Amino acid sequence: MLSTTERTRLRRARHKARTDRADLYALLDEGMVCHMGVVVDGAPMVVPTAYGRVGDTLYLHGSTGARSLRAGGEVCVTVTLLDGLVLARSAFHHSVNHRSAMVYGVPRVVTDERERRAGLRALTEQLVPGRWEAVRAPTAKEMVATRVLALSLEEASVKVRTGPPTGDEEDHDLPVWAGVLPIRRVFDAPEPDPGLREGVDVPAHVAERALSR
Amino acid sequence: MLSTTERTRLRRARHKARTDRADLYALLDEGMVCHMGVVVDGAPMVVPTAYGRVGDTLYLHGSTGARSLRAGGEVCVTVTLLDGLVLARSAFHHSVNHRSAMVYGVPRVVTDERERRAGLRALTEQLVPGRWEAVRAPTAKEMVATRVLALSLEEASVKVRTGPPTGDEEDHDLPVWAGVLPIRRVFDAPEPDPGLREGVDVPAHVAERALSR
Repeated sequence: MLSTTERTRLRRARHKARTDRADLYALLDEGMVCHMGVVVDGAPMVVPTAYGRVGDTLYLHGSTGARSLRAGGEVCVTVTLLDGLVLARSAFHHSVNHRSAMVYGVPRVVTDERERRAGLRALTEQLVPGRWEAVRAPTAKEMVATRVLALSLEEASVKVRTGPPTGDEEDHDLPVWAGVLPIRRVFDAPEPDPGLREGVDVPAHVAERALSR
Repeated sequence: MLSTTERTRLRRARHKARTDRADLYALLDEGMVCHMGVVVDGAPMVVPTAYGRVGDTLYLHGSTGARSLRAGGEVCVTVTLLDGLVLARSAFHHSVNHRSAMVYGVPRVVTDERERRAGLRALTEQLVPGRWEAVRAPTAKEMVATRVLALSLEEASVKVRTGPPTGDEEDHDLPVWAGVLPIRRVFDAPEPDPGLREGVDVPAHVAERALSR
């Protein structure tokens, strides 16, 4: 169960809240980038960035020079999956079917070298499962240039909107088409690097990812 | 041209910056949701939300009760489009092809009724061009319940990553597949509302949107 805090409690549209931890995991595992909010000089800054999950920890990374990772203090990490455009009979009831997770907390700068590698592994595996074992591991020099942050999933909320449009009784007989336009993320065929060594075929882990949702 | 301020200047990977205003418009027009960052009680909060653009103004909306719209002060609105997973020979050089825009500013609460409607029109048209004219317009009561915010596009940055992976010379001959796994957003066939009035067909504007990128 996700515990509720003052800021993870949905105040409006409470039926959209999900409190099962499995929903949080599923959503995070399906996403590919998050939007991380930090406060810099008192103002918000929202950066798209990669992430990976290990149990109840979200790993983020970046250059040691990145402003967003140097900010310190609280972050809010949001992952949003778009599932469809909700077209109602009235402009007012238009909506978007989506699943989104918001995670609040103060990230910990990971210093343990083994955990740092586990975090980077999760980040790589998030993009394409099976990728980490297939590629060259980070060198000591690359590790020095990389900051790894760990954010606990302790304080998180999940919001889900599904299904057809809602609307007002009196609009029901309007001659307006209403429904959902489903959105899907697809991968196209892998594009080999122009400098790819001859004889290196698309490996199974990439082919499988291309076919995944 | 996008003017550069202290916070819109890219410090790292400067070649990814785009300073043509047309790139900003194209990106914003292609997106469907943004992530809006606000500061609430000193901490960041990032919410996915719809938006619409009219010229150099971004319109946002929400319930008058929404915390994120009540926060006041600075916001950062980020729109990210994912174009592909960049699979390098080394874990370190993995990346994501994407286009992202960050807009900074203090949104103005729109009070002029005509501009409020224009803003809501832009929000609706962002989802499906042609939708606004096809649906019931907001009532006076609905207008009262809706807050419309206007954010100037004056302070904005655009970042774009395209193309194959980069990497180190010495990795080039590793027998590792490298390349890009392109990502595309597609719409599936429109799903009519279960309560749709008989004889109301999918209109052209919805059919066209379903076929759009």
